[in-house]
Amino acid sequence: MNTDWLDRIAWNADGLAPAIAQEAGSGDVLMLAWMSRESLALTLASREAVYWSRSRQALWRKGETSGHVQQVQDIRLDCDGDAILLTVVQTGHTPGIACHTGRHSCFFSQLQTAPEGPTWVSVTPVLKTP
Amino acid sequence: MNTDWLDRIAWNADGLAPAIAQEAGSGDVLMLAWMSRESLALTLASREAVYWSRSRQALWRKGETSGHVQQVQDIRLDCDGDAILLTVVQTGHTPGIACHTGRHSCFFSQLQTAPEGPTWVSVTPVLKTP
Repeated sequence: MNTDWLDRIAWNADGLAPAIAQEAGSGDVLMLAWMSRESLALTLASREAVYWSRSRQALWRKGETSGHVQQVQDIRLDCDGDAILLTVVQTGHTPGIACHTGRHSCFFSQLQTAPEGPTWVSVTPVLKTP
Repeated sequence: MNTDWLDRIAWNADGLAPAIAQEAGSGDVLMLAWMSRESLALTLASREAVYWSRSRQALWRKGETSGHVQQVQDIRLDCDGDAILLTVVQTGHTPGIACHTGRHSCFFSQLQTAPEGPTWVSVTPVLKTP
């Protein structure tokens, strides 16, 4: 396969680039994960999100254990070529759960100001106990 | 100031974390940049996005030269504590321009399939010549 399109990406020293998953329709930002050349190529080929797990140092087919597969509708690259944006449909037995905590989005902690100083507050519900 | 909230973030080896800027209202993902402890603290204090420029190795007050300041309405942290999501109003003389190319969003290159293989195609207009 022609890999010029993969060479256009400014992979970091670890050969990775951050990838944002945004939900089709709602526009909600679901998560940020990392992709390698191979994971992005597999994502394009399968039209399902495949990331690179930095903790496991392995390909991570999103939903492989949870069933929360992400169907990929669109793949974008930013102006610097170092960040990827996916438009996804978050599928699964309970649709719309991207986070391993059972929440819709991984970005559920909101910075709020309190008398003792700024604090992170969980503001979205767990839809399904993991 | 209490800095516990900054300690909650899993800064990388360079002391940075990726920050996504999402436009209030439209939900459009405008850009991904990087933040340091100081830039995030300044963002909270000023309610305007301050990033860390990895190329210049300096604080980057978004809009300091372009005028395309981002007013910050909401700051979120993800489940792993290693990615930040900002909800912003993209202001400026011509509002709604986040990209240094004069486009609305930095994610203007779309992956398309062509007979010769996948290719990145610019799919959104330049709103203002930089």
